[in-house]
Amino acid sequence: MKHIIYADNAATTKMDIETFEAMKPYLLNEYGNASQPYLFAQSAKKALKKSRETIANCIGSQPDEIYFTSGGTESDNWAIKGSALADLGKRIMVTSVIEHHAVLRACSDIERMGYPVTYLPVNHFGEIETYSLSKVITKDTRLVSIMLSNNEIGTIQNIRELANIAHSSGAIFHTDAVQTVGHMNINVNSLGVDMLSASAHKFNGPKGIGFLYIRKGTPIYPYFSGGSQEFSMRAGTENVASIVGMAFALEKNLKLLAESTAHINDLEQQLIQGLQNNNIDFVRNGSHYHIPGNLSLSFHGRDGEVLLHRLDLMGICVSTGSACDSKRSQISHVLQAIGLDESTAKGTIRISLGKFNTSEEVTYIVDALSKILK
Amino acid sequence: MKHIIYADNAATTKMDIETFEAMKPYLLNEYGNASQPYLFAQSAKKALKKSRETIANCIGSQPDEIYFTSGGTESDNWAIKGSALADLGKRIMVTSVIEHHAVLRACSDIERMGYPVTYLPVNHFGEIETYSLSKVITKDTRLVSIMLSNNEIGTIQNIRELANIAHSSGAIFHTDAVQTVGHMNINVNSLGVDMLSASAHKFNGPKGIGFLYIRKGTPIYPYFSGGSQEFSMRAGTENVASIVGMAFALEKNLKLLAESTAHINDLEQQLIQGLQNNNIDFVRNGSHYHIPGNLSLSFHGRDGEVLLHRLDLMGICVSTGSACDSKRSQISHVLQAIGLDESTAKGTIRISLGKFNTSEEVTYIVDALSKILK
Repeated sequence: MKHIIYADNAATTKMDIETFEAMKPYLLNEYGNASQPYLFAQSAKKALKKSRETIANCIGSQPDEIYFTSGGTESDNWAIKGSALADLGKRIMVTSVIEHHAVLRACSDIERMGYPVTYLPVNHFGEIETYSLSKVITKDTRLVSIMLSNNEIGTIQNIRELANIAHSSGAIFHTDAVQTVGHMNINVNSLGVDMLSASAHKFNGPKGIGFLYIRKGTPIYPYFSGGSQEFSMRAGTENVASIVGMAFALEKNLKLLAESTAHINDLEQQLIQGLQNNNIDFVRNGSHYHIPGNLSLSFHGRDGEVLLHRLDLMGICVSTGSACDSKRSQISHVLQAIGLDESTAKGTIRISLGKFNTSEEVTYIVDALSKILK
Repeated sequence: MKHIIYADNAATTKMDIETFEAMKPYLLNEYGNASQPYLFAQSAKKALKKSRETIANCIGSQPDEIYFTSGGTESDNWAIKGSALADLGKRIMVTSVIEHHAVLRACSDIERMGYPVTYLPVNHFGEIETYSLSKVITKDTRLVSIMLSNNEIGTIQNIRELANIAHSSGAIFHTDAVQTVGHMNINVNSLGVDMLSASAHKFNGPKGIGFLYIRKGTPIYPYFSGGSQEFSMRAGTENVASIVGMAFALEKNLKLLAESTAHINDLEQQLIQGLQNNNIDFVRNGSHYHIPGNLSLSFHGRDGEVLLHRLDLMGICVSTGSACDSKRSQISHVLQAIGLDESTAKGTIRISLGKFNTSEEVTYIVDALSKILK
């Protein structure tokens, strides 16, 4: 197999070998059920405790505010449905039109159950204007859920301000931070959020594991009912190996964050500059304030799927939109929401660079795009 | 660390090294998002397809009737809540008093949402008498959920007969087979079930992965809403490595099933005989028709927690009841349901033997129990 240039890091990321090594003992030898009282299970239990502390440290929370889940989708579904079920008095939820489908479809579910949802628009940069939240929020708003950074265009929202508005009306604030955790420094207190979703495979951890941060005192109903794991809030035998891998990966990414962010920003600049130098006609979508490495590029009159396929033939992996909806071929709801016309939206690809990408790879991507587009 | 005798295989099991090796490439190199269209993701996508076929073969279903989940708890919650949300006309559900808490607490959740649940009693052997289902089932019964074998006492139910009764009233039949899959030959068509829950870590696979079998045409609403993975029925980036591990472990266990069942039955006999030969006063709970290796033993007047602790000091891992509720110290709902008096129930431990246990280990367990109980 020829060398692959993986430039789809927003879809999923490669795990570090050290993360794999950290998981290995819990996959093979320390297999005890972490909820059992005997000595043999203590190692698993300790690893669980340590991982919870590590993750709490990484986001500025208390350890017992971290609840392990099977990933971002579960965390989002839990936050939205669990909040609806916990407070039957305040029925209204507010979210935005550019959320991930894990949020949007969980919202459809609660609408079906009789909980109305208001959808905030975004401007051309994919930003939610704070006044649009102020305008709709009332004392009957139970929950506001706005993503920290968008998976398709990278735009980072002004969460602190939005959370303030939510709180001043007595609402809870949740943020889907699946694309952000491990890629920027996050502190739940500075952000002012009550709940935050994360997924390990987006920050070089294993797939099938994530967490939901829930600030102490936040009214929420469990989503996985059953055993008394996770402080009786999320049932199911603890997936210790993956939890250990997630904590290890997050801590490692944050330790090297300054360095990798600078590296990724350089690559991003190189890519944009390279396309410009080759006189390629493109528009970059999203806001100036975006998650490092996420480049949504529109080539007017082109077909994003054809571009993806031709890049693939040259060994380059990119995306046309969200990986989670690659089977649906309609135009991305995010690109529609920022006001792209159909033809521009169709000619859009997402290149997402990560810490493992190199300058040589970016040169190769620029050359490949130039060949295809000329 | 001294040699551990792991006799708590109903709580979780040790993974085979070959299963780990099967997972490894998907943890390290084949990390592509299985929902992406490019070549690099094809290997993950193929592994997903092959694993689905393997598991379908193992239980006699079609591949597209297998939906990957994060484990038994999710599968049970999905089956019960997803069924309630899919059919608003028929509101009543029937289950039994000895189900796992993942079923019982999911039932409480739907009761809270306005769906009544009827709980069938069991006899002294932990068996659900088929007439007790016939008596309560009506045309308004939407779902009957009865576990295949019980986690605490091992009793296997007459699922075929119970499913027939359910179907003749037009109800759907779900079985929690978490303790059974990988330990007995199962065929969803012979059993006549419409839904079946399973969890990999109970059959020497990894933790954090399971599946829900859903017979084609069964009305059910998704539980994880979001991306279009799993035929748009269960959102979330596919956990390919764990899925591969689950399929590998299940296929391997079933290939060696005759051999390991004979081995485990021998160990079971040896243990019972050994205790009898040492004149230890005990009662074995459950039915003659039970899952291999599951021994629920009551020592009247003794304290199960003390027994567990003393065995632990001798390097032996057993359980007092369900691992999922080891933090709750009240008397097991299963032991209550089969009519044990409080003192007998308190003096109960569960020894669960698996394919890795040896005759020497059983001798050691018998000697240890004899020392403690004399």
